[in-house]
Amino acid sequence: MRIVGIRRETGGVEVAALSADGAEVTVLATLERFWADAAGFLDREPAGESVPAASVTFVPPVLPEARVICVGLNYLRHVAEGSFAGEGVPPHPTLFARWTRSLTVGGVPVPVPAGEDGLDWEGEVVAYVGAPLVDAEPEEALAAVAGYSVFNDLTARRAQKLTSQWILGKNGDSSGPLGPLVPASEVGDLRDGLRLRTQVNGEVVQDARTDDMVYTVGDVLALVSRTFTLRPGDLLATGTPAGVGYARTPPWLLKPGDVVEVEAERLGSVRNPIAGNDARALPVPEM
Amino acid sequence: MRIVGIRRETGGVEVAALSADGAEVTVLATLERFWADAAGFLDREPAGESVPAASVTFVPPVLPEARVICVGLNYLRHVAEGSFAGEGVPPHPTLFARWTRSLTVGGVPVPVPAGEDGLDWEGEVVAYVGAPLVDAEPEEALAAVAGYSVFNDLTARRAQKLTSQWILGKNGDSSGPLGPLVPASEVGDLRDGLRLRTQVNGEVVQDARTDDMVYTVGDVLALVSRTFTLRPGDLLATGTPAGVGYARTPPWLLKPGDVVEVEAERLGSVRNPIAGNDARALPVPEM
Repeated sequence: MRIVGIRRETGGVEVAALSADGAEVTVLATLERFWADAAGFLDREPAGESVPAASVTFVPPVLPEARVICVGLNYLRHVAEGSFAGEGVPPHPTLFARWTRSLTVGGVPVPVPAGEDGLDWEGEVVAYVGAPLVDAEPEEALAAVAGYSVFNDLTARRAQKLTSQWILGKNGDSSGPLGPLVPASEVGDLRDGLRLRTQVNGEVVQDARTDDMVYTVGDVLALVSRTFTLRPGDLLATGTPAGVGYARTPPWLLKPGDVVEVEAERLGSVRNPIAGNDARALPVPEM
Repeated sequence: MRIVGIRRETGGVEVAALSADGAEVTVLATLERFWADAAGFLDREPAGESVPAASVTFVPPVLPEARVICVGLNYLRHVAEGSFAGEGVPPHPTLFARWTRSLTVGGVPVPVPAGEDGLDWEGEVVAYVGAPLVDAEPEEALAAVAGYSVFNDLTARRAQKLTSQWILGKNGDSSGPLGPLVPASEVGDLRDGLRLRTQVNGEVVQDARTDDMVYTVGDVLALVSRTFTLRPGDLLATGTPAGVGYARTPPWLLKPGDVVEVEAERLGSVRNPIAGNDARALPVPEM
């Protein structure tokens, strides 16, 4: 089952199941009702109204108040390739933040801000929290995951590295495309190793397996839950493997006209064109 | 005029004006309608229904999808007192992120997470963005500010300093109390120097003026707008002055039973009790 967010002509965001051929969506619930019982909705066969996919606008199935918690430096070979190479694996997961206003879906053009030489790709897998977590153990935290998506943590490197803190360069307009949510029951455990690949204009630039992660989904969510209470709908972006553009010789960044695609086993793919800064002047789609 | 968010028995968050004596609120609009025309609502005399303050629940007048952009190291004497003392003033504003789920209002107990020795205070002034900003100049960005509040950026220092990135320790449950929003027209320019003070159990621990900021509100918003588009309802927390607890000898952190209050000229105050980790098990108020 592939779960998506949709907007129809009137009303707010709804959550729907995409048909196997992608031609139809079956509406499950409003965004709020879905996240109030994500496990229940994902367990049942979709039973609502079906409408043609061409008649709706796709948006992330994400609550506006959700936290998008991102792990940096979570694959050994990525730690070794970048600015932090000399420091080894950090003793705790390095967490940074995205706001939901940076999220989008496949097909939406991602603008390069005027002051950047381009955008860098970071193919990832995202986990969706489906239940509240307070001071949780890793196994409890893992069991609370409702589903997973592919994700591209598109990064404005100049802004990211202006100061010690990364968040400016991690929140560009439409810079976080999410693929459809796949229920955890269909994905299994990322520790079993799903293949994760990123392609730029058809060329493979990242190719890794999710069992190479340093900190597992359960570990990270448990750690977070000891400081703040995780709530249904929160997201964890689990970090990118080796192969990003800025660490190459010479550096390689995405320019307007390029197409970037992140694909993972069992999760499908998310594919986006890169646009110029002018695309920022257009109205940003409402969450 | 003091603007607050309220919840009544049914329906979502509304924005209201608090009467001079605090006994009544006059409802202005739903949260979404308010932020669609904040300047207009703040310009007119409040004209909606009035209800007793005792009959409503106060919440931040903040959109769930708003970004809470925080400036670290923005007062010279605070830069000199902390972990970054040897590095001097950063050449750009150091930006980190809060999610709106960490925000609350005065009176709400703020829990100390189990793994922390206490919470640190950080009295601040927050600016609310009232209009979209793309690649803005500082003067345009400043003109887009709809209002200001006092704010306490209560910090879990252990979590903040686990890794290079600060956000875990900056997003504790109910750790971001906001005072009422005061329209920019009544506040003037922070560069004129509003006195900003923090008290712990009645003792003054921070006492500074907002004209000591290194990076002004206009500067920071303009910088941000060159990477991502600011939208009505986004917040900028402008940084804390010297006097935080962890940099003292010996360190001084807030413990359950303490009361902390941040007060600024023209903006009023926000005052919160500190609670134990047990308070985290209670349902967190919905935004």
